[in-house]
Amino acid sequence: MPRNFKLTLAYDGTDFHGWQMQPALPTIQSILAESIGRITGEKVVPQGSGRTDAGVHALAQVASFAIESSIPSRNLMVALNDILPAAIRVTAAEEVAANFHARHSATGKSYRYRIFRGEVCPPHLARYVYHHPYPLDESQMKQAAPMLMGEHDFTSFAAVDPEKGKEEKEECSNVRNIARSEWQREGEEFTYTVEGNGFLHHMVRNLVGTFLLVGKGSLTPGDLSRILQSKSRSAAGPTAPPNGLWLVSVRY
Amino acid sequence: MPRNFKLTLAYDGTDFHGWQMQPALPTIQSILAESIGRITGEKVVPQGSGRTDAGVHALAQVASFAIESSIPSRNLMVALNDILPAAIRVTAAEEVAANFHARHSATGKSYRYRIFRGEVCPPHLARYVYHHPYPLDESQMKQAAPMLMGEHDFTSFAAVDPEKGKEEKEECSNVRNIARSEWQREGEEFTYTVEGNGFLHHMVRNLVGTFLLVGKGSLTPGDLSRILQSKSRSAAGPTAPPNGLWLVSVRY
Repeated sequence: MPRNFKLTLAYDGTDFHGWQMQPALPTIQSILAESIGRITGEKVVPQGSGRTDAGVHALAQVASFAIESSIPSRNLMVALNDILPAAIRVTAAEEVAANFHARHSATGKSYRYRIFRGEVCPPHLARYVYHHPYPLDESQMKQAAPMLMGEHDFTSFAAVDPEKGKEEKEECSNVRNIARSEWQREGEEFTYTVEGNGFLHHMVRNLVGTFLLVGKGSLTPGDLSRILQSKSRSAAGPTAPPNGLWLVSVRY
Repeated sequence: MPRNFKLTLAYDGTDFHGWQMQPALPTIQSILAESIGRITGEKVVPQGSGRTDAGVHALAQVASFAIESSIPSRNLMVALNDILPAAIRVTAAEEVAANFHARHSATGKSYRYRIFRGEVCPPHLARYVYHHPYPLDESQMKQAAPMLMGEHDFTSFAAVDPEKGKEEKEECSNVRNIARSEWQREGEEFTYTVEGNGFLHHMVRNLVGTFLLVGKGSLTPGDLSRILQSKSRSAAGPTAPPNGLWLVSVRY
């Protein structure tokens, strides 16, 4: 009877080609799979709660996989942190019920997007924030944020690639329920926090790119409803750079 | 009449081979020299307040150089930040008197050494702290720190290489005056702050390596006086890893 594990992972996505395995490229999933293999001798494909793009960071990504090994979860965590690069850390490991699946069992997620507003971005933050020192009407962006709350069809904010359009669910619906959508200023950082029951591929980055158009005055807060209703990717703003995005937590 | 400039620089030292120019290796000094050359068309060797080793970071390193160009200092700063990698930032630029020299004019420096004490080091801190989750008697280290204050011959804490032994001064004395020497706990970080009129090559890292022996119980706080008096590198502890070290400021 295989044992099912849930790992919580933090990573600096800068030097990886995103979560998902790709031939001959370093990705979080492939490095994790290889490390589990070295420890247990078993070939597994750990399932993530969802993909993160190249350059996107995680405070608490979740992965699940089943192994035959009798290794205690605590030892698995320590052994993985010995092998993994310092840019990927296992912050928790636990044995879970056989039907737990990091993606299918997820009921919600929280993301944060960090914008550094100061003129000179400190080098130790450069990997972790999007540096945007140019004028933005932050109060307009704050006002626009709650427009996304509740249940909406987010087609306008989903990556167009049909292969990549369904990050969270195997079904085709682009309807998601957003429980929190808020911009906040803390010192030189202007940060967007969004929580919901699921997110489409590129959705948070596309939302941020659209909020930036509101901040620049090209759109008004009220335009967000129109963009949602249009169900057209071309109605929304561009995709914001990946390095400001953090997967903060996954809810089960 | 050439114009003399003072630049203040912040950098993430992880991906560079230290401050000092080396043939065919990326160093802060060589990348800065090349960038000044691209902007002004002039070949200069910017002088730093002192070398930092590979992997060591700076919040406010200072460099000076003379150029013929009439570029305003503000424009020079903006142009440099356009060209330099995000891991190196110019945080201030000013025209100074012809006799100002980043190293010779310096009257003091402040360093910080960050140790992360938690079991799992967050990936976004891994480049900037030394991860040491093992037992340390921090109160003994706190007690040892003030023993270094005042004027002492720091030969025991200087790199042995005679070519590299004189970072700060062209004279041969290893006597330095330390105005602050303190360990402090903040959350999961245990940080050493040291301020003095100058530092020998490897001195802060060798001090930290010796404090770690105090923390492990191999040395007592009182042993620090004996080590200073011995004037022998072998009496002190090993050189702590570079990535926890930050040059915080240079005084003029």
